[in-house]
Amino acid sequence: MAQAWTLTARPVGLPKLADFSLVDIALPPLEDGLVHVRNLWLSVDPYMRGRMNDAKSYAQPYMLNQPMVGGAVGEVVESRATGFAVGDLVLHSWGWRDEVVAAAGSFAKLPSLDVPEQRFLGHLGMPGMTAYFGVLEVASAKAGDVLFVSAAAGAVGSAVVQIAKIKGLTVIGSAGGAQKCAVVRELGADAVIDYQAEGSLDDKLAAAAPDGIDIYFDNLGGAHLDAALGAAKDNARFAMCGMIETYNDQNPPGLRNMMRIVRARIRMQGFIIFDYNHRLGEFHAQMGRWMAEGRIQSTETLRHGLDQTPAAFLELFSGGNSGKMLVKL
Amino acid sequence: MAQAWTLTARPVGLPKLADFSLVDIALPPLEDGLVHVRNLWLSVDPYMRGRMNDAKSYAQPYMLNQPMVGGAVGEVVESRATGFAVGDLVLHSWGWRDEVVAAAGSFAKLPSLDVPEQRFLGHLGMPGMTAYFGVLEVASAKAGDVLFVSAAAGAVGSAVVQIAKIKGLTVIGSAGGAQKCAVVRELGADAVIDYQAEGSLDDKLAAAAPDGIDIYFDNLGGAHLDAALGAAKDNARFAMCGMIETYNDQNPPGLRNMMRIVRARIRMQGFIIFDYNHRLGEFHAQMGRWMAEGRIQSTETLRHGLDQTPAAFLELFSGGNSGKMLVKL
Repeated sequence: MAQAWTLTARPVGLPKLADFSLVDIALPPLEDGLVHVRNLWLSVDPYMRGRMNDAKSYAQPYMLNQPMVGGAVGEVVESRATGFAVGDLVLHSWGWRDEVVAAAGSFAKLPSLDVPEQRFLGHLGMPGMTAYFGVLEVASAKAGDVLFVSAAAGAVGSAVVQIAKIKGLTVIGSAGGAQKCAVVRELGADAVIDYQAEGSLDDKLAAAAPDGIDIYFDNLGGAHLDAALGAAKDNARFAMCGMIETYNDQNPPGLRNMMRIVRARIRMQGFIIFDYNHRLGEFHAQMGRWMAEGRIQSTETLRHGLDQTPAAFLELFSGGNSGKMLVKL
Repeated sequence: MAQAWTLTARPVGLPKLADFSLVDIALPPLEDGLVHVRNLWLSVDPYMRGRMNDAKSYAQPYMLNQPMVGGAVGEVVESRATGFAVGDLVLHSWGWRDEVVAAAGSFAKLPSLDVPEQRFLGHLGMPGMTAYFGVLEVASAKAGDVLFVSAAAGAVGSAVVQIAKIKGLTVIGSAGGAQKCAVVRELGADAVIDYQAEGSLDDKLAAAAPDGIDIYFDNLGGAHLDAALGAAKDNARFAMCGMIETYNDQNPPGLRNMMRIVRARIRMQGFIIFDYNHRLGEFHAQMGRWMAEGRIQSTETLRHGLDQTPAAFLELFSGGNSGKMLVKL
């Protein structure tokens, strides 16, 4: 019997394991045009938190007591659709489950790039695209700019650091703890801030960027955003994609440096990577080339087994992952 | 003896009268190249609060115990500079004083537009320019957009309302109290919100803009900014020029809707009108034409006498003015 995780209650604040339930699901019969896929890798991503609310957002809220949708990579085990053969590896959004039978149009065959298939959930997938278009388009990065990125050891942040270095920027990455900071340094960051170490984030950022920053790539919001506002040079660009710190917070704290948006003429631009889906080909070609050349390194944190999926998701909010968090089935 | 107001202490929070002192000043002898001007109108503007801090900003901090600089309109009473004759009306930045002797280069003769001279401190001056470039450039306004502006009865807001209506936008203005709301309605706003009346700002804005807003022109920050974030349509543009509510606040409150920057892909752009000084001619021509056609109405709140200047300035933060606050000498 196939199984899937459902959302059984809309979390208030930080989600808990009891908000999810692993249930048996009946797969529909394999009719013409359908494909049967066994999942190999499931993605857990911070943005999923937003979909757990019943609120206006870019994606529909999750339906209660229905299988949780989300990114996954699987292998075709049966096919009654042209273009899909047994053994094909596919990317899809059917989410937290071990098997799925669905219309061929909801699966995309992985491009033939010489990389492990789970990269299509990481640096060649949504997090990598977020970094790529966030740095190059949203933040209008150019050689010589000083870029500050929070959660620099994470799935998005680790790509931001490396893409920015390839493009000739000076990069300051923030991460929590000595181990993650070592990862960020290894990725090529010019300066690393351990935000869990003693001292204020403002002081650490001022020491790392004495002349200020041109770009802030925000994955966290909160104190990091406030420090970045304080350190922004005139005409700085803020690429806003995350604010994960405030996802679970009903009453986020005030930003002391909010007025600097005006005084430093900051451009703060929110973005959703799905808006760049039409440029997926360009992204795959460029990122695939950098990976083949060894210029982009990928780190992963793995959890094993479908039953570990909600726990892996919750770890995103306690900093449990370095690089892309994945569930291997 | 000429007199000028000086800043005697850097205010913490809301400034108070005791932070200012009216002192006698000696005017320098009228040497070659100098002009002697008697002031007619002094401007008090919210941005002056920022310059009272000893902090990084777009303008130099005010020096303690020196005459307060700022916009003023005066009349030439003596001249030893070519191009300036007795009786000429001039705009300058020598600020809160009755007379000044200074280099000709620090005075600009008023353009020959058929308007009262004090307009060059209001709708034909810095507040009008802020509205003009804020709406048309920073917010990329286009016909059909729904625009929300806070402090809509103020010097900047009253110009925002009228420029947006000329350009074919739907305009929602917020102001405090029935009297100011009547002013905003008179200026042509499609809907007016009295933020001092009972009920939440969120509810009032939702009622006025059931489909959301495309543009928010921020003069206040705080609760207005938060409500605008909540009501923003996808790809909304926020022109950030004010946040006057938070000028005096050391610990501004958190914004509940900050995450909507990401989810609605909001572009929040800070701007300083001095950056548009090179387009002053274009602004004077267009705004002057609209005024001559009777399409831009100007309201003013007057205080009389040099001694009233700091009190007039403080009234900006308690909502004492409708339209442009001026001191008439």
